[in-house]
Amino acid sequence: MDPATWIAIASIVTAGLTIAIGSIGPALAEGRAAAQALQAIAQQPDASNTITRTLFVSLAMIESTAIYCFVVAMILIFANPFTGG
Amino acid sequence: MDPATWIAIASIVTAGLTIAIGSIGPALAEGRAAAQALQAIAQQPDASNTITRTLFVSLAMIESTAIYCFVVAMILIFANPFTGG
Amino acid sequence: MDPATWIAIASIVTAGLTIAIGSIGPALAEGRAAAQALQAIAQQPDASNTITRTLFVSLAMIESTAIYCFVVAMILIFANPFTGG
Amino acid sequence: MDPATWIAIASIVTAGLTIAIGSIGPALAEGRAAAQALQAIAQQPDASNTITRTLFVSLAMIESTAIYCFVVAMILIFANPFTGG
Amino acid sequence: MDPATWIAIASIVTAGLTIAIGSIGPALAEGRAAAQALQAIAQQPDASNTITRTLFVSLAMIESTAIYCFVVAMILIFANPFTGG
Amino acid sequence: MDPATWIAIASIVTAGLTIAIGSIGPALAEGRAAAQALQAIAQQPDASNTITRTLFVSLAMIESTAIYCFVVAMILIFANPFTGG
Amino acid sequence: MDPATWIAIASIVTAGLTIAIGSIGPALAEGRAAAQALQAIAQQPDASNTITRTLFVSLAMIESTAIYCFVVAMILIFANPFTGG
Amino acid sequence: MDPATWIAIASIVTAGLTIAIGSIGPALAEGRAAAQALQAIAQQPDASNTITRTLFVSLAMIESTAIYCFVVAMILIFANPFTGG
Amino acid sequence: MDPATWIAIASIVTAGLTIAIGSIGPALAEGRAAAQALQAIAQQPDASNTITRTLFVSLAMIESTAIYCFVVAMILIFANPFTGG
Amino acid sequence: MDPATWIAIASIVTAGLTIAIGSIGPALAEGRAAAQALQAIAQQPDASNTITRTLFVSLAMIESTAIYCFVVAMILIFANPFTGG
Amino acid sequence: MDPATWIAIASIVTAGLTIAIGSIGPALAEGRAAAQALQAIAQQPDASNTITRTLFVSLAMIESTAIYCFVVAMILIFANPFTGG
Amino acid sequence: MDPATWIAIASIVTAGLTIAIGSIGPALAEGRAAAQALQAIAQQPDASNTITRTLFVSLAMIESTAIYCFVVAMILIFANPFTGG
Amino acid sequence: MDPATWIAIASIVTAGLTIAIGSIGPALAEGRAAAQALQAIAQQPDASNTITRTLFVSLAMIESTAIYCFVVAMILIFANPFTGG
Amino acid sequence: MDPATWIAIASIVTAGLTIAIGSIGPALAEGRAAAQALQAIAQQPDASNTITRTLFVSLAMIESTAIYCFVVAMILIFANPFTGG
Repeated sequence: MDPATWIAIASIVTAGLTIAIGSIGPALAEGRAAAQALQAIAQQPDASNTITRTLFVSLAMIESTAIYCFVVAMILIFANPFTGG
Repeated sequence: MDPATWIAIASIVTAGLTIAIGSIGPALAEGRAAAQALQAIAQQPDASNTITRTLFVSLAMIESTAIYCFVVAMILIFANPFTGG
Repeated sequence: MDPATWIAIASIVTAGLTIAIGSIGPALAEGRAAAQALQAIAQQPDASNTITRTLFVSLAMIESTAIYCFVVAMILIFANPFTGG
Repeated sequence: MDPATWIAIASIVTAGLTIAIGSIGPALAEGRAAAQALQAIAQQPDASNTITRTLFVSLAMIESTAIYCFVVAMILIFANPFTGG
Repeated sequence: MDPATWIAIASIVTAGLTIAIGSIGPALAEGRAAAQALQAIAQQPDASNTITRTLFVSLAMIESTAIYCFVVAMILIFANPFTGG
Repeated sequence: MDPATWIAIASIVTAGLTIAIGSIGPALAEGRAAAQALQAIAQQPDASNTITRTLFVSLAMIESTAIYCFVVAMILIFANPFTGG
Repeated sequence: MDPATWIAIASIVTAGLTIAIGSIGPALAEGRAAAQALQAIAQQPDASNTITRTLFVSLAMIESTAIYCFVVAMILIFANPFTGG
Repeated sequence: MDPATWIAIASIVTAGLTIAIGSIGPALAEGRAAAQALQAIAQQPDASNTITRTLFVSLAMIESTAIYCFVVAMILIFANPFTGG
Repeated sequence: MDPATWIAIASIVTAGLTIAIGSIGPALAEGRAAAQALQAIAQQPDASNTITRTLFVSLAMIESTAIYCFVVAMILIFANPFTGG
Repeated sequence: MDPATWIAIASIVTAGLTIAIGSIGPALAEGRAAAQALQAIAQQPDASNTITRTLFVSLAMIESTAIYCFVVAMILIFANPFTGG
Repeated sequence: MDPATWIAIASIVTAGLTIAIGSIGPALAEGRAAAQALQAIAQQPDASNTITRTLFVSLAMIESTAIYCFVVAMILIFANPFTGG
Repeated sequence: MDPATWIAIASIVTAGLTIAIGSIGPALAEGRAAAQALQAIAQQPDASNTITRTLFVSLAMIESTAIYCFVVAMILIFANPFTGG
Repeated sequence: MDPATWIAIASIVTAGLTIAIGSIGPALAEGRAAAQALQAIAQQPDASNTITRTLFVSLAMIESTAIYCFVVAMILIFANPFTGG
Repeated sequence: MDPATWIAIASIVTAGLTIAIGSIGPALAEGRAAAQALQAIAQQPDASNTITRTLFVSLAMIESTAIYCFVVAMILIFANPFTGG
């Protein structure tokens, strides 16, 4: 088997596992933040604007770590600098 | 066994595991957010509109990490750039 | 052993594990959401309509990640694009 | 050993593990939902009709993920499309 | 070693693990439901009829996932369609 | 080594692990149910008859999953249909 | 190495692991039931007779799963039907 | 290496692991029961006789599962029926 | 296979796992901090400015550990000092 | 390598792991019992005699499982019946 | 394959895993400290200066363990004393 | 490689792991007991003498299991009876 | 491959894992201590001097175990006594 | 490869893992004790002298298990009695 095949296999497996493992943490964290936001709205309806805005900024920040993983997975599949090696 | 077979096997196994592992986090997170939303409605029925709207936006955000995994799995099965290697 | 056999074995094992692992998260999440909905009804019987409707929308959303896994498993068994390789 | 034997072994092992692993999540989720329903009845006996109805719909929804696993296991044992390969 | 032996070994090991792993979830779930039912009776003795009836229906539903595993294990030992292969 | 030896080894190991793993879930579940029953009696001594009766029915139901495992282990040791193969 | 040696090794290792793993669940369950019984006595000293009796019946039931494991371990060491094979 | 050596190695390793793993469950369970007993005495000093007696019976019952493991370990080291094989 | 291929494979797999594993901790930590911030706002709306500012500084600090991982992953893919070895 | 060396290696590794693993459970259990005893003294200083006495009896009982492990480790190192085999 | 390649591979894999594993603990710890700080501000707004200052000193101290890992990873990639071996 | 080298390697690895694994349980247990003692002093300062004395006796008892591990590790390094074999 | 290479690889991998694994415990412990200190300040602002001083002494003590790991990692990389072997 | 190299590799890897694993338990335990001490000071500022003194004695005792590990690691690196074998 030629080297390109090995690199292709490694890229495929790594890309899949990267996004799969990398989605666990952000998803759970977003679920926690969202759940707490809902509880906060129920507890203090008057502050729902502040709560919602803080929630969305936080979700974006958390989502960023998932996007790091997605970027790495996409790079490994479509823009892998080693596939020409 | 020729390289294409190895790449096919790696793609099949990776696609399956990606969506399988990648669905655990989002599912649990959505379950948590939904459960908290139901509790919030029971606690503050008057704010059910705000709660429901925030819930759906949050669910969509969480679902996005599952969709990343589904996209990668579909790419590996139907649009794998390495299968021509 | 010919390549088709290897691909068949990989597809069988992956299909089974995909739906098996992929059903853990959604099932637990649905159980949590349903349990909280029942508690919410007991706490606020007057809001049972809103609670039930929100519950069913949430269950459908959570179920979607299980369906992703089921779709991938079915594709691997009955519509595997690699089996002709 | 001929390919058919390998496929048979893979099918047997996968079918067993699929239903075994796949029954953990739904069983725990049903147990949680049922436990909460019983607590809800004890807390609000007057709403027992609504609670029981919501419980059964939820149990059916959760059971569906276990049935996905059972269906895949049965397909692998009795209607395996690869056994003719 | 002939193929029939391999299939026999795979069937034995899989049957045992299927029922062993598959009994963890239902047992824990039934224990949880039963424990909550006992607490519910202690809290609201007047509703013991409704509680007991709901408990038994729930136990039957949870038991069904254990029975799926038992059925698969029995099929693998006594009615294995691959043993003639 | 002849096939019968392999099947014997597989049967021995599987029988032991089946009953060992299979006794964890039921034991913990029975412990939970019994603990809750004792708490319920302390909380509501007047309902001790109903509690005790419900406890024993539940214990029998939970024990059934342990008995499935014990039955499979005994079949594998003393009535193994493959040992003649 | 002759088959009898392999079977002896498998029996020794399995017997040890069976009773070792199989004692975790019952021990923890008995500890939980006993702890709750002690708490129940402290809470309701007048019901100590009913509590003690229910505790001992429950402990016997839980102990039964440990005894299943002990029986299987003893059978594997002293009455192994495969050692003559 | 002769068979007796293999059996000796298997017996040594199994004996050690059996008592090591087998002491985790009973130790934790005894610790839990003892801790609860101490709390119960502090809560209800007048019932200390009943509590102490129930504690010692429970400790003896829990200790029995550790003794099963110790017996099996001793049998494997000093009275192993396979060492003459 | 030449050394450059091995180094490429090691770099691909390591880069993916680094960002995947390295995103779990920061994501969960950010989720926790954000959730607590939302609860704090609901509890003390007047201090929302201080809370939000402290939250963002903390998120930046936590994000830094994720960025360490992202930097290492990018170095391994695009600026690997060993690829010329 | 002669059999005595293999048995020596197995004995060394097993002795170390036995006491290492076997000290986790008793240590945690003693810590729990001691912690609860301290809390009980703080709650009910008048019963400190009964509490201390019950604590020491319990600690001795829990310590016994650690001593089982220590005995087996010492036997394997200094009085191993297999080293003459 | 020459030794330099092996050392390069070991350095790459170790550097990635070091920063990946090493970021989990500090991230979670910082998240916990930050979350508690936010709760403390909400509870005692007057002490927000002391709280914020203590928080930042603590975050710096916790971050130091992540920096140890980052330093080791950087040393392994860019200043590895073994690469000349 | 001669037997003495194998025994030396086994002794080194085992000694390290024994004290490493064996220090987890006692350390956590001492931490728990000490933490509870501090809480008890804060709750009942008048009983600080009894609490401190009971704490030190308990710490010594818990430390004994760590000392067992340290003794075994030292024996394996400096007084290993097998190194002459 | 010469021995120096093997020792270099072992040193690299061990140094990385030592600091990576060794930073988890201290980081979490410091986070816990810092979090509790912040809560303590919020609860008793008058004692902030004593709390802060005790916190810093404790953090230094906890940090010492991380420094042990860092020292060992540095010794393995820069002052390894075996590299001349 | 000569025996001295094998022993060197085993010593390096063991020394690193010993201090790495061995620092988890003491660090967490010290964190717990320190956290509780801070809470105790906040709850009972008048007893801060007794609390601080008891804390430092306890920390020293817990630190001792980490020092055992550090001693063993240092012995393996700098005073290994097997390196002359």
